[in-house]
Amino acid sequence: MRILLPILATAIFISFISPVLAQDQDSLAIRQIYSEALTSAVAWRNLDYLCNKIGGRLCGSAQAEKAVNWTKGVLDKMDLDTVYLQPVMVTHWERGTKETGKVISRKAGNHTLNVCAIGGSVATPGNGITANIIEVKNFDQLAVLGKEKIEGKIVFFNRAADPKPIYTFDAYGGAVDQRARGAMQAARFGAVAVLVRSSTLAHDDHPHTGIQHYADSVKSIPAMSVSTNDADSLAYWLKSDPNLKFSMQMSCKLLPEVQSYNVIAEISGGEKPNEIIAFGGHIDSWDVGQGAHDDGAGVVQTIEVLRIFKALNIKPRHTLRVVVFMDEEYDQRGAKVYAAEAIRKSNLGTEKHLAAIEADRGGFTPQGFSIDASDEQVKKISNWKTLLKPYGLWSIEKGGSGVDIRDLKPLGIPLIALVPDSQRYFDYQHAASDTFDKVNARELALGAAAIAGLVWKIDRDW
Amino acid sequence: MRILLPILATAIFISFISPVLAQDQDSLAIRQIYSEALTSAVAWRNLDYLCNKIGGRLCGSAQAEKAVNWTKGVLDKMDLDTVYLQPVMVTHWERGTKETGKVISRKAGNHTLNVCAIGGSVATPGNGITANIIEVKNFDQLAVLGKEKIEGKIVFFNRAADPKPIYTFDAYGGAVDQRARGAMQAARFGAVAVLVRSSTLAHDDHPHTGIQHYADSVKSIPAMSVSTNDADSLAYWLKSDPNLKFSMQMSCKLLPEVQSYNVIAEISGGEKPNEIIAFGGHIDSWDVGQGAHDDGAGVVQTIEVLRIFKALNIKPRHTLRVVVFMDEEYDQRGAKVYAAEAIRKSNLGTEKHLAAIEADRGGFTPQGFSIDASDEQVKKISNWKTLLKPYGLWSIEKGGSGVDIRDLKPLGIPLIALVPDSQRYFDYQHAASDTFDKVNARELALGAAAIAGLVWKIDRDW
Repeated sequence: MRILLPILATAIFISFISPVLAQDQDSLAIRQIYSEALTSAVAWRNLDYLCNKIGGRLCGSAQAEKAVNWTKGVLDKMDLDTVYLQPVMVTHWERGTKETGKVISRKAGNHTLNVCAIGGSVATPGNGITANIIEVKNFDQLAVLGKEKIEGKIVFFNRAADPKPIYTFDAYGGAVDQRARGAMQAARFGAVAVLVRSSTLAHDDHPHTGIQHYADSVKSIPAMSVSTNDADSLAYWLKSDPNLKFSMQMSCKLLPEVQSYNVIAEISGGEKPNEIIAFGGHIDSWDVGQGAHDDGAGVVQTIEVLRIFKALNIKPRHTLRVVVFMDEEYDQRGAKVYAAEAIRKSNLGTEKHLAAIEADRGGFTPQGFSIDASDEQVKKISNWKTLLKPYGLWSIEKGGSGVDIRDLKPLGIPLIALVPDSQRYFDYQHAASDTFDKVNARELALGAAAIAGLVWKIDRDW
Repeated sequence: MRILLPILATAIFISFISPVLAQDQDSLAIRQIYSEALTSAVAWRNLDYLCNKIGGRLCGSAQAEKAVNWTKGVLDKMDLDTVYLQPVMVTHWERGTKETGKVISRKAGNHTLNVCAIGGSVATPGNGITANIIEVKNFDQLAVLGKEKIEGKIVFFNRAADPKPIYTFDAYGGAVDQRARGAMQAARFGAVAVLVRSSTLAHDDHPHTGIQHYADSVKSIPAMSVSTNDADSLAYWLKSDPNLKFSMQMSCKLLPEVQSYNVIAEISGGEKPNEIIAFGGHIDSWDVGQGAHDDGAGVVQTIEVLRIFKALNIKPRHTLRVVVFMDEEYDQRGAKVYAAEAIRKSNLGTEKHLAAIEADRGGFTPQGFSIDASDEQVKKISNWKTLLKPYGLWSIEKGGSGVDIRDLKPLGIPLIALVPDSQRYFDYQHAASDTFDKVNARELALGAAAIAGLVWKIDRDW
């Protein structure tokens, strides 16, 4: 591949003369980027280390600190122009050691369920909570049942994610309110705790965690997640014994905030060093798995973009910046700090972002990009479809981007999400099953190449 | 979903009036097909049974017979118009119980490698073969080395599949000649056996089998496959000790031919029952795994097409026929028998095929169809892109179809292959790792829906 570089250099030169040759140059560059990604194991080995040597890394935890240091170490060795830490204060919530949920029933039998605390939950009292269960499918049903039927009970939110949408994020979006706001809503009617069906389309034994929020106006009650299989079983047992008891115990706690960091690294632009193309994923993850797809993949892929540019000796016109965000899962504090600084510098006129790209939808075969931008900007990027389609990037459409870059919206730049195949993502997201072995080396590499190709094109044409 | 049926029936009626409404009707039908596929577990449970209760099913084996009977039983229970067996005589090759490969070297150490017999190989003599190894990358190299260097040795074909093509079948196609014709080529120069690097892009410990062919003009020598990891190790050991010995033993044998069957089932066409839309996969598989992706997936997906039409109460205009082919892996005898009969009936004017669709590239997220047909036919089908793209079917292009339907070429009909995401296929194909747990329920269902949608459209518009 390296022998092609003189051809590429020549093509770059010629491109100022002929638009046809510019097209050839683009094709050649994209092909070289993909070849470099597909023949290198660096991103794959990085993910292996992050998952198997560091593991789950919830913001505020010792593992998150380890992950930040490791990330900086990886970037320091890449001969980049800039590597630095951007300070971010983060919440420090801990799951604790107790986490049990049991069905107690003479008719239906006693059963231990696969459960886990939902992120940010308060603990149960020391001896746990034992109460009757009331099953509901949505918040409207809570209001219909009212305080009379709910008070003193554990509300069991059991609306399954809808399997019919093709893009699974739509299914997730239609179910996750139960996890995110279930406790807050149930507390309004006097519930003592909530048990929530995992927001996944898989039928298995993994409880899925994730963030949930309390409201100041109501009591904070414990929130627990249960696997889809066990949610189905519980619904079945409730039919034979509506008065069964559920006994749950959790020892989660909120500790003082912790100093943490975004990790940022750059290749400086040769022509316009103050103009930035930013791309990144988030280094924090939930604690129950290894954070392989969510979002170790996005971290190693966006670091890989810089490695590819270095390996191919491509000198960018603008500065290429990887932003490894801290705390996507809990409060998006890293995103807020990064955006505030970017907007401040933009106002000062000392730095200008051209685009921001987020990789946080899993390390699966990429299918394209979702672009939050003006129609004109979207059109410009979707004109690159012909170039990118041979690589399976067929879907380049207006749409949402991602929570780590959305705060850059005031900059008026395209905010772009890498869109991989979504079918398996929610099988693993926020569960113990989100481990390195679920990631395919080629699919991971293709995602890195897709971002690098887009970055190349933005750098050339924006 | 069932409550939508009256709407669909109305839409079908209205479609004879307005092309715009016909589009709406198409959209509605495709949406219903996908919803039915994504909310049913039937195909998934069928694959579970086929893989976990029957397992690997090489043509001629008792398991293959069991699989034929099971398939017929499944179809018999589906309230179809026709279910029958089409007789096919098949080869019966057995792997036998001995299958070992060992490196013997003072310098490099003694090592047992992960190996398996390549399909159709002759056995080694009873005590095995022990000989020096000579590593080559391609057939040209054999000719350069010549009889002098090769005679009496085991030829080690160690050309890795090229990771750079995006579509992995291209990588496979560029490497598989070593397996398919390595023994025949090496025997010309006096080799005593061949050891072949597995044709996969994965770096792991699974040897991959598959068919290989001998030539009448040269001696049939034993052919063995070695995992990619062990191929790399062997190449490394050969550097430190070019004179190391390799000792291999295999007890494969060729038994008398066996009576077997294609399994065929139909929903009769309401308007033109003698006009056939055929679709299928192959029920035989290699013996080393469970034949989950290759090709249990294709079998249960194409059976699922009929189930979807029944469930939605869609009465096709033409006859919909599933063909569950026997013996794709060894000799394609089922394909030959089916094609001969189809061509005979076509010549008699008693039966006319409209199209044939093959599902044999794994049960992964479908990306589109590859069509072996005239430009005009391809154009007609690719006009359906707008309809199918919301389901991720973005690639509808002229190309190859599949070995079970290619013999229908004289009929002049479109021969169509379902094209799923290819990244993981060769990780599992022909290896012990091709098991049920490698198939995702939604990806499998999407493939069935994709075929059903295409069949719907052909039935309406061809």
